[in-house]
Amino acid sequence: MRGAVLHAPGDVRVEERDDPRILVPTDAVIRLSATCVCGSDLWPYRGIEKLDGPSPMGHEYVGVVEEVGSDVANVRPGQFVIGSFFASDNTCEICRAGYQTSCIHREPVGAGGAQAEYLRVPLADGTLVATPDLPPQELVPSLLAASDVLGTGWFGAVAAEAGPGKTVAVVGDGAVGLLGVLAARQLGAERIIAMSRHESRQSLATDFGATDIVAERGDEGIARIKDLTDGLGAHSVIEAVGTQESMMQAIRSTRPGGHVGYVGVAHDVALPGDELFFSHVHLHGGPAPVRRFLPDLIDLIWNRTIDPGRVFDLTLPLEQAAEGYRAMDERRAIKALLQP
Amino acid sequence: MRGAVLHAPGDVRVEERDDPRILVPTDAVIRLSATCVCGSDLWPYRGIEKLDGPSPMGHEYVGVVEEVGSDVANVRPGQFVIGSFFASDNTCEICRAGYQTSCIHREPVGAGGAQAEYLRVPLADGTLVATPDLPPQELVPSLLAASDVLGTGWFGAVAAEAGPGKTVAVVGDGAVGLLGVLAARQLGAERIIAMSRHESRQSLATDFGATDIVAERGDEGIARIKDLTDGLGAHSVIEAVGTQESMMQAIRSTRPGGHVGYVGVAHDVALPGDELFFSHVHLHGGPAPVRRFLPDLIDLIWNRTIDPGRVFDLTLPLEQAAEGYRAMDERRAIKALLQP
Repeated sequence: MRGAVLHAPGDVRVEERDDPRILVPTDAVIRLSATCVCGSDLWPYRGIEKLDGPSPMGHEYVGVVEEVGSDVANVRPGQFVIGSFFASDNTCEICRAGYQTSCIHREPVGAGGAQAEYLRVPLADGTLVATPDLPPQELVPSLLAASDVLGTGWFGAVAAEAGPGKTVAVVGDGAVGLLGVLAARQLGAERIIAMSRHESRQSLATDFGATDIVAERGDEGIARIKDLTDGLGAHSVIEAVGTQESMMQAIRSTRPGGHVGYVGVAHDVALPGDELFFSHVHLHGGPAPVRRFLPDLIDLIWNRTIDPGRVFDLTLPLEQAAEGYRAMDERRAIKALLQP
Repeated sequence: MRGAVLHAPGDVRVEERDDPRILVPTDAVIRLSATCVCGSDLWPYRGIEKLDGPSPMGHEYVGVVEEVGSDVANVRPGQFVIGSFFASDNTCEICRAGYQTSCIHREPVGAGGAQAEYLRVPLADGTLVATPDLPPQELVPSLLAASDVLGTGWFGAVAAEAGPGKTVAVVGDGAVGLLGVLAARQLGAERIIAMSRHESRQSLATDFGATDIVAERGDEGIARIKDLTDGLGAHSVIEAVGTQESMMQAIRSTRPGGHVGYVGVAHDVALPGDELFFSHVHLHGGPAPVRRFLPDLIDLIWNRTIDPGRVFDLTLPLEQAAEGYRAMDERRAIKALLQP
């Protein structure tokens, strides 16, 4: 099959790879209908995250089940399914508490590289969720978004305790931040402040439910959030970047007793204990347990209540994956969908 | 009046100081019935926290109202009252959310030095809570504990979401940690693991409700907590020390999705963002909003449901404050009560 492999920073190639197959009886193999490039794929692409030899890329996927192992009971060949970047048994105590990305049996699905024609998914019963039927083509991008970026923005909003009566600020205007706005809206937030300096992203944030846009960053951005909240800070702040600057911007934009939900994968972040102590914020986040939210997210998409697929502003054939990476790296595209 | 002043690390003197008086109409002046030495007083005593000239010490107090300013309506001369280390208006949006120690009008009560005969308390209406009557002498230590150390342990337990069905671990066997054990028990925790290597403290922890004692620290301590929790870690961990080691021990002893409540004042702590991200814990804490809990804590003490005053294992006349500091510094005493 064909699949994208990162050979070195900036060097993505689509090449022949071995077809994945069932290795253990709990596996499934799916034929991908769509996949995409993640903001987190840009860390190794940019050389910020160390690369350990050529790496198959991609961990977001939707597709049709091709084959299942003998122990798989919840999904069957021919079904259209969505899964998350960590396979999970969905039965252990940690999964049952809603933290499937910390499942005691978790396995990274991305090890197989989802930017490809086929993908092996471990722990298929716990990981994959089937749609009610084969979806119409126009729903595929939104269902693909549910695989990671929507679920991640949603977890950010849940971790930040976005809800009725709350003012929510969102740090980061990538796809996750934008879908954090959408999630906060769905969760009933009263006011949603998107922090963005890019016109097209501001516009999409507004479509997704942002009531205010703050273009300033750093101390000026924090001051603007305070201005908009009687000097107190937002009740809930979603952090969707993962740098020291964005984390501190999020913490300092939150009122005492408020909640920071952080979903940007942390890179070189060290949080000062004394400032955190006196900030009085709640801090929660990490790799989004997308599986927790998938059934609800699929419903919302299936019923046309939400349209998260709009974050894909570039669609390319899988063979042009390298251009997808370039466009996102240069911020010409919010998120690139790849068609195998 | 007589009051304790820290002149230099290790140098506490009880000396003549000006009698406090009403400065603004929202003040009260109270005649102290008892005061004490806090673990946080040891930071400047040990020279770890910088001292800016001779400093009146102490921020824990109970006593009888001597005089109130013309705007004070909720307490009156002759009442026995308890307050917290930060004065708060108890009416602003932050106070109403339960974060009185981040009140928009907060003032440190400790500036006046509560290890003394009299104390000026700002924002008396929002800060002080009167007992139903003048308390019998045997309740005074417990009521004094409510002023800080009980309220702080209680907040640690609440921030860690201790409750029915939960396994709670407590890092730190000072008075705050021990009262964190008591709080976890009152909040209905199923299992409470006290981390302590001192026999007398282990014994008090057990009396307060600890079901297990772990004497190991650091990686060994974490491994013991994992052993006791099916390899998962505790649901709730109360951190009551404030060092890098204790914070990391708390985070690493908590299961994914669990809660760390940290109330040890952070000193030279930097939390690694990537480890925090993948730990999946909730983090909350800071200066305990004792005022939130005071009415309930007074009830529990008044009804003899709890006896937090047992943390005072040394009682001295105020004049011997220096010995109280020494005994706590050398860990000969858990906590020293001073009688003016």
